Amino acid sequence: MCNACNDPTHDSQLAQPGRRKLLIASATGLAGAAAATLASTGVAQGQGGAAAAPKAPFETRAFGTHAADQPIREMKIRRRAVGPKDVLVDVLYTGICHTDVHLARNHWPGFFPTMWPVVPGHEIVGRVAAVGSQVTKFKVGDTCGVGCLIKSCGECDNCKADLEQYCLRGGPTQTYNWPDSDFEGHTLGGFSDRMVVPEHFVLRVPSGVDLPAFAPLLCAGLTTFSPMQRWKIERGQRVGVVGLGGLGHMAVKFGAERGTDVTVFTTSPGKAADAKRFGAKNVVTWTDAAAMQKQAGTFDYVIVTIPYSYAVGPFVNLLKTRGTLINVGNMEQLQEVSGAALVFAGKQIAGSLIGGLAETQQVIDYCAARNLKADIELIRPDQINAAMDTIVEKRARYRFVIDMKAGRAAA
Amino acid sequence: MCNACNDPTHDSQLAQPGRRKLLIASATGLAGAAAATLASTGVAQGQGGAAAAPKAPFETRAFGTHAADQPIREMKIRRRAVGPKDVLVDVLYTGICHTDVHLARNHWPGFFPTMWPVVPGHEIVGRVAAVGSQVTKFKVGDTCGVGCLIKSCGECDNCKADLEQYCLRGGPTQTYNWPDSDFEGHTLGGFSDRMVVPEHFVLRVPSGVDLPAFAPLLCAGLTTFSPMQRWKIERGQRVGVVGLGGLGHMAVKFGAERGTDVTVFTTSPGKAADAKRFGAKNVVTWTDAAAMQKQAGTFDYVIVTIPYSYAVGPFVNLLKTRGTLINVGNMEQLQEVSGAALVFAGKQIAGSLIGGLAETQQVIDYCAARNLKADIELIRPDQINAAMDTIVEKRARYRFVIDMKAGRAAA
Repeated sequence: MCNACNDPTHDSQLAQPGRRKLLIASATGLAGAAAATLASTGVAQGQGGAAAAPKAPFETRAFGTHAADQPIREMKIRRRAVGPKDVLVDVLYTGICHTDVHLARNHWPGFFPTMWPVVPGHEIVGRVAAVGSQVTKFKVGDTCGVGCLIKSCGECDNCKADLEQYCLRGGPTQTYNWPDSDFEGHTLGGFSDRMVVPEHFVLRVPSGVDLPAFAPLLCAGLTTFSPMQRWKIERGQRVGVVGLGGLGHMAVKFGAERGTDVTVFTTSPGKAADAKRFGAKNVVTWTDAAAMQKQAGTFDYVIVTIPYSYAVGPFVNLLKTRGTLINVGNMEQLQEVSGAALVFAGKQIAGSLIGGLAETQQVIDYCAARNLKADIELIRPDQINAAMDTIVEKRARYRFVIDMKAGRAAA
Repeated sequence: MCNACNDPTHDSQLAQPGRRKLLIASATGLAGAAAATLASTGVAQGQGGAAAAPKAPFETRAFGTHAADQPIREMKIRRRAVGPKDVLVDVLYTGICHTDVHLARNHWPGFFPTMWPVVPGHEIVGRVAAVGSQVTKFKVGDTCGVGCLIKSCGECDNCKADLEQYCLRGGPTQTYNWPDSDFEGHTLGGFSDRMVVPEHFVLRVPSGVDLPAFAPLLCAGLTTFSPMQRWKIERGQRVGVVGLGGLGHMAVKFGAERGTDVTVFTTSPGKAADAKRFGAKNVVTWTDAAAMQKQAGTFDYVIVTIPYSYAVGPFVNLLKTRGTLINVGNMEQLQEVSGAALVFAGKQIAGSLIGGLAETQQVIDYCAARNLKADIELIRPDQINAAMDTIVEKRARYRFVIDMKAGRAAA
């Protein structure tokens, strides 16, 4: 039986660590354990104590790859000196998002080609190791988070409206795989020991929460929370969630928390018990055309988390009159978009990208206040490649989170 | 020079009628002329006088075709007896919508196959010739309108919400090419002399308006007015209108009336002067990629009236963050729908179908109060086929309206 999901039919897909018991985040709070591993890393600061911010660029350990057909390997990368408004983050936990797989394997050469080497990771929970002289929001020792963005212009209409994800000046700087206007080359993400991030892009994470299970909130949680806020999805509405992975399982939890009637559409009938545990009232195998037809025209919203190109027709068919399909996962083509299907019921297909910084803080606070968190499986850095394969095979339950200290503690 | 559009470069595409001067609706009010032609038809009733409603099915003249490759020809069709809640409409003017071309030529065999014979026409202005015993809204002699729908269940949530166009019980009965649950075979439209229509589906048209120029409001006007109401399109917003035909030219007029900043996107640069006369501030040839790129990211809404399958990418690219593309014309596939394009700016693609009956009345009243109307070219029934060719060739300026009495007056 899997300790992460309590499903007797599910075994953890990855080999257990040899020297130290795999921390199962869903089963136990990890803040204490995190602090314990932190102490063993040799990073020069103490809990809440003063620490000198690096005055010059420095090296740190990371996990990345130099080519799409090469596995993720340990490497050394450079980080910039900590500026007056920067926070030095000692990374504790980093979730593995499907986007990390896409970019590590250069799945989007057309519109988002991978810059080599790539160090993925944008679901980061860490601890403040040092702060610049002008930082006011954080002190050394605070638990914190970093998500998909680490910089934006701050001046365009979208940035001023707390929609930094849609920054109009060339887009925000993504946490990795984006030109780094403040340092060398391109940005490198959270599969690393330390990061330097402007204060505005660092989130407050309460120290008492299940830290590794909060890491996925920084992308998967935000990405599914944000459209529910934008469209004011609320009690009494029917919400379909297509795909029960990292994003999907958070969408179910949020939908249930808001009092909506959630149905999960999956290709993995074996996930049905989990779906219901997360709060879904109903589970449908969406490759079953007859089962899908029974649900036709009954959903206010369908949130599709499929991370690949798909035919939208079967999901548009689920919508009520004037219902909305919200695509949050697929960056490739939406196939089979019928004008008639949209016109004859006034339906719409929308896209939604993560959320702004204020909304990221909101989802963290929302979850902390309600004891919501991701269902995760904690792994060591040396298990990243196997975890990525497991994700592609749809066998993740439901987010792999890398314990960045595990490898060092074991070394 | 064309008297319809006052464009010195534009000649009317159709031969002028031989025996009687073609009535140019945009140039002169036609209510008086309409009454004059009405008197010559031999229909047995007078202005405001009593008239016996047919107690049995009756024959009437119509224009339709028995096959996709056959022209529209005069034929006799049967209408049902006038029931207690029915209105007998003496058809005066019927607009030719692009949908009429699609269905006369069976362009949509997959999802909306043509039932033969087809008698098109769903932009109808007429005069009440008789009323059933329970009709309260109309009296004989009233000017009236009939649009795309002539029946719906009246009991589903959508019908009760004045959204009869989205009737949930198998869809509303369309004015033509729909199974006729009240009579023989399938419904037959407004390319005919008389129609029997339930009172709820007959609209009030003020007698003082330019009647033939009001006919297109019943579909083209409604179809472009309705999304502006739904999305609350308002002063200060930028609205793109793609395609300057029957629907597009009404969208421009409505957009300008609402105080929005309208840009027309057309493949016919020769329509620029007309576009500006209708109220557009800017005109862009949308096959010019450089010109399109200059407009990227600047529109709140883009209303696409193209009646064929098209690639949405260039139009999605016009939208601001969270902007909406509204597809009102194309019932076939929307091509090249990029997930990334929607996700990375939170955009949406929506469909919208005409409007409900209350909204149809609203658009008529709105136009009557503001002296808005369609720009039309009035034709005789024997010019329908040539007019349809002209529409396909994008040379209509901007709606052909059939003067249903012209043929009889000339006969």
